[in-house]
Amino acid sequence: MAEAKTLGGAGLRGQVAGQTALCTVGKSGTGLTYRGYDITDLAEHAQFEEVAYLLLRGKLPNRQELEAYKARLKSLRGLPEALKTVLEQIPKDAHPMDVMRTGCSMLGNLETEKDFSEQDDKIDRMLAVFPSIITYWYRYAHDGVRIDTESDADSIGGHFLTLLHGKKPNELHERVMNVSLILYAEHEFNASTFTARVCASTLSDIHSCVTGAIGSLRGPLHGGANEAAMELIQRFKTPDEAEQGLLEMLARKEKIMGFGHAIYRESDPRNAIIKQWSKKLAEEVGDTVLYPVSVRCEEVMWREKKLFCNADFFHASAYHFMGIPTELFTPIFVMSRVSGWTAHVKEQRANNRIIRPSAEYTGPEPQAWVPIEERA
Amino acid sequence: MAEAKTLGGAGLRGQVAGQTALCTVGKSGTGLTYRGYDITDLAEHAQFEEVAYLLLRGKLPNRQELEAYKARLKSLRGLPEALKTVLEQIPKDAHPMDVMRTGCSMLGNLETEKDFSEQDDKIDRMLAVFPSIITYWYRYAHDGVRIDTESDADSIGGHFLTLLHGKKPNELHERVMNVSLILYAEHEFNASTFTARVCASTLSDIHSCVTGAIGSLRGPLHGGANEAAMELIQRFKTPDEAEQGLLEMLARKEKIMGFGHAIYRESDPRNAIIKQWSKKLAEEVGDTVLYPVSVRCEEVMWREKKLFCNADFFHASAYHFMGIPTELFTPIFVMSRVSGWTAHVKEQRANNRIIRPSAEYTGPEPQAWVPIEERA
Repeated sequence: MAEAKTLGGAGLRGQVAGQTALCTVGKSGTGLTYRGYDITDLAEHAQFEEVAYLLLRGKLPNRQELEAYKARLKSLRGLPEALKTVLEQIPKDAHPMDVMRTGCSMLGNLETEKDFSEQDDKIDRMLAVFPSIITYWYRYAHDGVRIDTESDADSIGGHFLTLLHGKKPNELHERVMNVSLILYAEHEFNASTFTARVCASTLSDIHSCVTGAIGSLRGPLHGGANEAAMELIQRFKTPDEAEQGLLEMLARKEKIMGFGHAIYRESDPRNAIIKQWSKKLAEEVGDTVLYPVSVRCEEVMWREKKLFCNADFFHASAYHFMGIPTELFTPIFVMSRVSGWTAHVKEQRANNRIIRPSAEYTGPEPQAWVPIEERA
Repeated sequence: MAEAKTLGGAGLRGQVAGQTALCTVGKSGTGLTYRGYDITDLAEHAQFEEVAYLLLRGKLPNRQELEAYKARLKSLRGLPEALKTVLEQIPKDAHPMDVMRTGCSMLGNLETEKDFSEQDDKIDRMLAVFPSIITYWYRYAHDGVRIDTESDADSIGGHFLTLLHGKKPNELHERVMNVSLILYAEHEFNASTFTARVCASTLSDIHSCVTGAIGSLRGPLHGGANEAAMELIQRFKTPDEAEQGLLEMLARKEKIMGFGHAIYRESDPRNAIIKQWSKKLAEEVGDTVLYPVSVRCEEVMWREKKLFCNADFFHASAYHFMGIPTELFTPIFVMSRVSGWTAHVKEQRANNRIIRPSAEYTGPEPQAWVPIEERA
């Protein structure tokens, strides 16, 4: 074997593991671009389906293309009976990310990608059906109802809210879901996306890649921060109480989720965007606690630690104002990021070499076999 | 962001992505060691359960420890009803690796790892139950029977053969399964193991790590080579026909699976071991075709291309002689490698930093938003 290069730092931080044309993080514009378009422009002007098209097909769709794409996604919302049966076997107290992972994996049994020429079809199906999977399970496990997962909602975000609440969402809520799905769609070589690319590099099927990515996103260091942020802000009844509580947590050196970022240094460009929408939602529902508490948390963390809110922090209150149960926050991340994951899988497949790094060996020297009678 | 280091070669080849005390590949002894013990010694003297214990607990067990460990594994072979129902939903023509991936993921819903203190329990359970999962599905889908997945077989390999064939295997077959499981147990930072470590680095649960690893092992560049080798050798009726056929394939520059290796340069130490067992099995069943054909393939590939058989090539005939359907070859790999994967997860957790590399950006420069009316 050729001598392996030893590199500083664990976790491959700052080390190039491949190429991408999909995304820059912390490099230009407000800090996040998808195929060169700034996240702020996308969140202001685009629909999520338009962004998914951009990531997956390489360009912004014209009106005809976008309408055809949305109509197609709308037609793919139904769940196969076997998948419903599987979801009904999953207990109420299961982790919703385990449900997503299992739902995606089961889909791969029923609608297997037999050839890479089918990849776009399989991707569209996952984009369309993931909101159906999580809400079917949630409503069955919690309310005992078998919902119809077809809806005539115009958007993926609207479809999710419709199935979750059993009624059409208002315009503001559908808009915020749309923005949220755009913000979470893509983020370069984060751990879940890298998982998808490692899997893709063995030339495995697309459901394996996405199933693996869901498993990685489940980790509390990765996808779970918006749920942790919710848990934090719900502890406090007033901004002053929040300030006091945070100062105590900082004094005890507790980890506070929803702040700082592995790559951004000054701010997360997604925060300003979701924060303004959280504010609008707070006004709509007449909130006088969660939003002001969140703002105070932001101020305190910056003043005390120069730590800024990342994308997750104001997502917590925003989702909560729309009546979304906290445990479904990370599954929404999946509904969005599946667009980025699968765009990366396509990219990996188009120019592939199996991802197989080396390890630094720290174990025992070669040792002779010891018969079982002679062991301590 | 700090300037990313650009490294030669795609796929992280030869680049150190972390530390391990579990394994060396191509470094000492016959070329493969688990915690310092040579694979040849392990395959000759050990039981698979002993090797799993070595990988997972860090030392060879004494007799009392090994017996307690095997008794424990034996007690964990039963399938929960909900998991059986899920497996019954999976069609006969599904990919068996999709079945393994879904079975593991579903298990994670029913017996979730809530805290890392539970990791050894969850690992033992997967080791014990994976043969039950694949054979339950296989026998139900193919023969319409709901098998009892408890067996009193002494070993994991024996348990698998017992459930598959509905009868106790003979001593030779149980021994070969044992050797095979040892040979496949661990192989440093291969793509599926690396998948498990990336997932573990987000502090996700153990079922997510293993589910993701199964998905990566499914890829034809990784786990599927023994099935491809079977497909190859079954084409030929005599060694001469095999020689002729291979020469023609080489002339057409077709890819021939089961030969060569990303890291080994001269030989794969696992080949000599499984080859001798394949020979013994051929003698037992009175084979005069598959084994001689396999030997001729080995000779031709070395003579013509200096390519040696890797671990997969003689596994094909060996498994076939034991009556194992070709499509279950890679699931056996899972039953074995789950020991290595989970040992790596434990290692990653014990000294963790999230694995989050960088990418070289090759996409468009920052571009201004284009309203939909103005798009081509």
